[in-house]
Amino acid sequence: MTKLESPALTPALGVFTEGSHHFPVRVYYEDTDFSGVVYHANYLRFIERARTEMLRELDIHQSAIHNGDAGEKMIFVVARMNLDFLRPARMDDLLTIETTPVKIGAATIELDQKILRGAEVLFIARVFIAAVAQGRPRRLPAEIRQKLTFGAADSSPEDVG
Amino acid sequence: MTKLESPALTPALGVFTEGSHHFPVRVYYEDTDFSGVVYHANYLRFIERARTEMLRELDIHQSAIHNGDAGEKMIFVVARMNLDFLRPARMDDLLTIETTPVKIGAATIELDQKILRGAEVLFIARVFIAAVAQGRPRRLPAEIRQKLTFGAADSSPEDVG
Amino acid sequence: MTKLESPALTPALGVFTEGSHHFPVRVYYEDTDFSGVVYHANYLRFIERARTEMLRELDIHQSAIHNGDAGEKMIFVVARMNLDFLRPARMDDLLTIETTPVKIGAATIELDQKILRGAEVLFIARVFIAAVAQGRPRRLPAEIRQKLTFGAADSSPEDVG
Amino acid sequence: MTKLESPALTPALGVFTEGSHHFPVRVYYEDTDFSGVVYHANYLRFIERARTEMLRELDIHQSAIHNGDAGEKMIFVVARMNLDFLRPARMDDLLTIETTPVKIGAATIELDQKILRGAEVLFIARVFIAAVAQGRPRRLPAEIRQKLTFGAADSSPEDVG
Repeated sequence: MTKLESPALTPALGVFTEGSHHFPVRVYYEDTDFSGVVYHANYLRFIERARTEMLRELDIHQSAIHNGDAGEKMIFVVARMNLDFLRPARMDDLLTIETTPVKIGAATIELDQKILRGAEVLFIARVFIAAVAQGRPRRLPAEIRQKLTFGAADSSPEDVG
Repeated sequence: MTKLESPALTPALGVFTEGSHHFPVRVYYEDTDFSGVVYHANYLRFIERARTEMLRELDIHQSAIHNGDAGEKMIFVVARMNLDFLRPARMDDLLTIETTPVKIGAATIELDQKILRGAEVLFIARVFIAAVAQGRPRRLPAEIRQKLTFGAADSSPEDVG
Repeated sequence: MTKLESPALTPALGVFTEGSHHFPVRVYYEDTDFSGVVYHANYLRFIERARTEMLRELDIHQSAIHNGDAGEKMIFVVARMNLDFLRPARMDDLLTIETTPVKIGAATIELDQKILRGAEVLFIARVFIAAVAQGRPRRLPAEIRQKLTFGAADSSPEDVG
Repeated sequence: MTKLESPALTPALGVFTEGSHHFPVRVYYEDTDFSGVVYHANYLRFIERARTEMLRELDIHQSAIHNGDAGEKMIFVVARMNLDFLRPARMDDLLTIETTPVKIGAATIELDQKILRGAEVLFIARVFIAAVAQGRPRRLPAEIRQKLTFGAADSSPEDVG
């Protein structure tokens, strides 16, 4: 049986530093297009992986929330994104996804996500995540809101619904 | 040999009506995720297909431009996107992508792109396309600018460098 | 409201001729990689779209079967594939997927799927589909088996479980 | 500037043990489909990542070969695949890709690739890679053939043209 204790066999987990979560992504063939650089929609896959790992690190289990283990069944959905594509990433690049909570509202999480190659910023996203149950917005559980405030400049539960 | 004259063997091309280009997209397994709906990044693939077919219909050949047939080698890149995810699309849905040029600048094309299921709007994107050569912004060729003004509310070449 | 009656706004449906189903696919940016041709895994997306449309044309509704409308809840899964990558497809290519049932067993469907560009064969797949319920192989409903025999060289329900 | 020295910021590299290369892959939203499990074509993306990392570890630089740094410009392409889909992988699964060279021919590399979840085998692929230059098969450079024999049961350069 394969042991997963070796660092080389552990997938990247990311780390928290100075109010942000950092997560590495390697660019493979599948991510590029015939223009020679990463296909623009694939940056959204990269930053979604980073959000998933950040929540995992914070012990926020999306599948448990989805199954209603903590009360009503709830899911997180992307409600809005503002994206700036600054410079292209290329095959074999080693990228870092930097995720910073900027506002934790009653029902909405606002994140800044940057894709960097070394110190160079390739892509910037402002991402608005909503909690949804039965097709309607829901208040975020207090526990989740608190866990996400590690990096938020502003965390005012009053500002949303 | 397979004949492609049958309508059933012609892929969707889209049509122009009232200043917009309309293009159909069917949702397949590959587009969905385990939450049961279309994975959010895949809406960007759908609207990119629509832009490609709109340019093809306007007789703007990206590969010719890319090869420098009309002068300097040039490419169109997505520079910015503002996205609103309103309602989810699902397996087997038949969607329409509605693309409307809103501003044709000297070096930038600004488009509105909506994804509809019947009359229901699922997704709205404001897309900023830039012409780039040798890594720097370039003026759009006059011919391309003119072709794209079919639907633009505003088309002022003076407003961009 | 968008009308979908125009051929240009109807996505490709495919046609049956001489024991095979034919379905068109256009190659977009998203399908290619930086080597300049279609990324090999994407041929599997193309032939899956063709299978989905073939079943739709045959009035076999996967979601109804999946929901158990005709008895036990059942799904079709890909159990095995043998693939030959003969020639690469490229950006803007118009491809035809040719799907031919070759054997309809009691619990397994065996299909030949080819990807053609005009008369040129780019890719050949032998695909084995299994009916599964509660994690175990199940006999195919007689109605489905019959619908699929339109092109099968051999259709012997005795040969499987 | 982001430092990449932390293990948590290093993407998985994989390790060689007993004639095989082992590489970890985490399943994300993007990999699944609405049936609740990993979309079948995505297993091909997983095993391609593993091949890329194996070659990187062996100091075989595909882009250098592609650019002709060692003589004629050459690329590796997938020529054939035989795939068995045994059990589905699911969201959040931590998988290991096990890659074993089984035959290094004059112009062809034959690999076994398995996807495991712990000790459970989910997927088996036999993959045939060809070296191609100017659209025609080419002999593998001796250096590459030698590097790949670390795990090959059989390595007979005579068996291929």
